[in-house]
Amino acid sequence: MENKKYIKIAYKEALKAYKKGDIPVGCVIVKNDKVIAKAYNKKEKNKIATYHAEILAINKACKKLKTWHLDDCILYSTMEPCIMCSGAIIQSRIKKIYYSVSNKNFGNIENNKIFKNNKYEIKKIENKQIFYLIQKFFQNIR
Amino acid sequence: MENKKYIKIAYKEALKAYKKGDIPVGCVIVKNDKVIAKAYNKKEKNKIATYHAEILAINKACKKLKTWHLDDCILYSTMEPCIMCSGAIIQSRIKKIYYSVSNKNFGNIENNKIFKNNKYEIKKIENKQIFYLIQKFFQNIR
Repeated sequence: MENKKYIKIAYKEALKAYKKGDIPVGCVIVKNDKVIAKAYNKKEKNKIATYHAEILAINKACKKLKTWHLDDCILYSTMEPCIMCSGAIIQSRIKKIYYSVSNKNFGNIENNKIFKNNKYEIKKIENKQIFYLIQKFFQNIR
Repeated sequence: MENKKYIKIAYKEALKAYKKGDIPVGCVIVKNDKVIAKAYNKKEKNKIATYHAEILAINKACKKLKTWHLDDCILYSTMEPCIMCSGAIIQSRIKKIYYSVSNKNFGNIENNKIFKNNKYEIKKIENKQIFYLIQKFFQNIR
């Protein structure tokens, strides 16, 4: 139940990215059942290559907690994180990653040996709204 | 010759990180033989998990050029970039990566299939000062 609540908040973030023309990805970081950071993909809007939702959410969480050690946090992303964001998750020591839609081309969670070999908790949380939003975004582009 | 000049600028950035207690890594981004961004590792100083030299330099370069497409840029790093920073390089479309010291535990350039399969130009540029600086940093920690 809680997971569905948080992935829904991530969806609302993704919607913001969608409205501004960015690939609709949203991210929420939770600690002790509280949202401590949320962000959405701003790569196109801000013209910065690293401004994926997960990077921006991790930055916000570090600022809020005044530490880069996010060990006890859970990261919710609407989409499977890419290589860069997977690396950022490793850097931040977040050990629980819940996401909704797989990213076959650029995703880096499902087949990542570091996650498999180090007891990361990785879960897929189904959410049809997220799936349809991404589908709609790529249909519009084509 | 030019490469040695730019890696030396990256070394000077790494020195700044060293003086502030961070792992001494510096990064320089060059376009058309001009330095357009330079940065050093600020992870400990700023307490932000993603504040590696390469990420900060890529962010600065995007801001300077007002685009996330850094296709024609060269990235110089004193150390082999990690997974996160390799992912950021991919996101930014930088295709030339020159670095000085290998990172056996956390480096993600030398064995990265994406770089191997996509004609990235990757070079090691020897610089003894960089090697000794990193050595000194880790000796001080132990």
